[in-house]
Amino acid sequence: MKRLPKYIQQTQGKLWLTEDDRDNLKISYKIKEVLFEATSDFQHVMILDSDDFGPMLVLDGAVQTTAEDGHIYNEMIAHVPLILHPNPKRVLIIGGGDCGAAREVAKYKQVEQIDMVEIDELVVKASKQYLPQVSGNLSDPRVNFIFADGVAFVKSVKEKYDVIIVDSSDPVGPAVQLFESAFYENLHRALHDGGIMVCQSQSPIFQPDIMKQSYDRIGNIFTHHQLYTAVVPTYPGGLWSFTIGSKQPLRSVEQVVFDKETKYINQAILNSCFQLPQFVQDYLQGELVSSR
Amino acid sequence: MKRLPKYIQQTQGKLWLTEDDRDNLKISYKIKEVLFEATSDFQHVMILDSDDFGPMLVLDGAVQTTAEDGHIYNEMIAHVPLILHPNPKRVLIIGGGDCGAAREVAKYKQVEQIDMVEIDELVVKASKQYLPQVSGNLSDPRVNFIFADGVAFVKSVKEKYDVIIVDSSDPVGPAVQLFESAFYENLHRALHDGGIMVCQSQSPIFQPDIMKQSYDRIGNIFTHHQLYTAVVPTYPGGLWSFTIGSKQPLRSVEQVVFDKETKYINQAILNSCFQLPQFVQDYLQGELVSSR
Repeated sequence: MKRLPKYIQQTQGKLWLTEDDRDNLKISYKIKEVLFEATSDFQHVMILDSDDFGPMLVLDGAVQTTAEDGHIYNEMIAHVPLILHPNPKRVLIIGGGDCGAAREVAKYKQVEQIDMVEIDELVVKASKQYLPQVSGNLSDPRVNFIFADGVAFVKSVKEKYDVIIVDSSDPVGPAVQLFESAFYENLHRALHDGGIMVCQSQSPIFQPDIMKQSYDRIGNIFTHHQLYTAVVPTYPGGLWSFTIGSKQPLRSVEQVVFDKETKYINQAILNSCFQLPQFVQDYLQGELVSSR
Repeated sequence: MKRLPKYIQQTQGKLWLTEDDRDNLKISYKIKEVLFEATSDFQHVMILDSDDFGPMLVLDGAVQTTAEDGHIYNEMIAHVPLILHPNPKRVLIIGGGDCGAAREVAKYKQVEQIDMVEIDELVVKASKQYLPQVSGNLSDPRVNFIFADGVAFVKSVKEKYDVIIVDSSDPVGPAVQLFESAFYENLHRALHDGGIMVCQSQSPIFQPDIMKQSYDRIGNIFTHHQLYTAVVPTYPGGLWSFTIGSKQPLRSVEQVVFDKETKYINQAILNSCFQLPQFVQDYLQGELVSSR
């Protein structure tokens, strides 16, 4: 019998991936086929073809993005800061190895350069080859791939950007630094005067403390900050948060016209994504404390 | 060893509930304790105390509502039609055995009568006793419990209502009838001239065909219809849809002031819940067809 990759179990002749990152809640995906498996210097990388979500990128056993719903996260992390910036020309993406965020940024004609700093080249290669539904097999000449540590990159970068997108994994291991004030200060330094940064700030349901921490830390460094949400079905709890830090007052969403071709975000979602449920407002204001 | 209720597995000394209603995606909840288990004339009923979501109501092995997030669904199915109706006095709830929807309706002082037609008295009893976080141990004197089949009830009811809330389970088995045109026609007949009905219309991610079918059928019978969404973490995919049918033009959400004490819905959510992602709009307009 062929050896199964770790994280994959065989039950009654069927293959399953069970995400093991949470203690009390497990999500299992039925798998048709292992399309790619390798271990890089940084992590275990798989592309699995799943029954419900099509091909999906799995790092160290955790689903990162899927053909079926990957566009939601990528559209929301890319379009919101880009449409709120009056004239984005130079964009930096930290992480985002699935290339989906870069693909969305590339929909903006006025953008001249997209620097994408991803630590793991293998994730980019695998996503381009086996996950074109997300990566679009990105070959836009404005995209400049830099395979390096994002934390070190923003610490030393001399050039400045209009928009910085932090498309990080969860704050465990090396990614912890991407949630620290020192990192946000370097982002602030690497932005032009009118610049905007955005980061994914975890689940309001399962990690409200990290969400609030990101929101507070960014608010301490940037003169303007705001949190928005989207629904990503393959993330636990569905609801996901993003936090924007800006050096200038953010344009009102009523002032902008959304005209890109997308599957999730549109004018209606842009108008509503900053409208937060009461419990999220209460967490951000410190009136509700996580019991988790 | 004590017999485990069906649907519960023991793994390495821990109890788990694995929802088995989907073929390709399984969600497993770690369980502290079985608080209640019995089989009624209609279904297998459990209240399980889970690690992540606290006590939860489980019918035939499927999680219906939990202490942690049950309020989201109940607030959204109750407050939206009630706040959009100019003067709701008589309210009918079909289903809603966890009592959470009735509890939200009872927050409206102008409501004089709440008829709750639930087929399974055992669900009400278990929820009142073991799930007060959702049921509020509802004892409002305006609530009139009627343990009967909702489909038969609306077929023969003589009285008329201002708001009807259809808090059904998934369209399998007897609940299928709650998604049929004949049922919606009876709701229309049982509503006053200015009346509003709402039903849960399933997941835009996993059951877009049922969502569209409910939306179309209600649109064929009511002069005004509209779909809105909420994020319910314990429902597969997170995103959930609700469809309103109304005999009068719906008031604009800008015209109403939301002033109830709640955990999820607030003025911001009311303003934004009708703003639909592009793929949901595309499904409703028939421009996207489910591949599931």
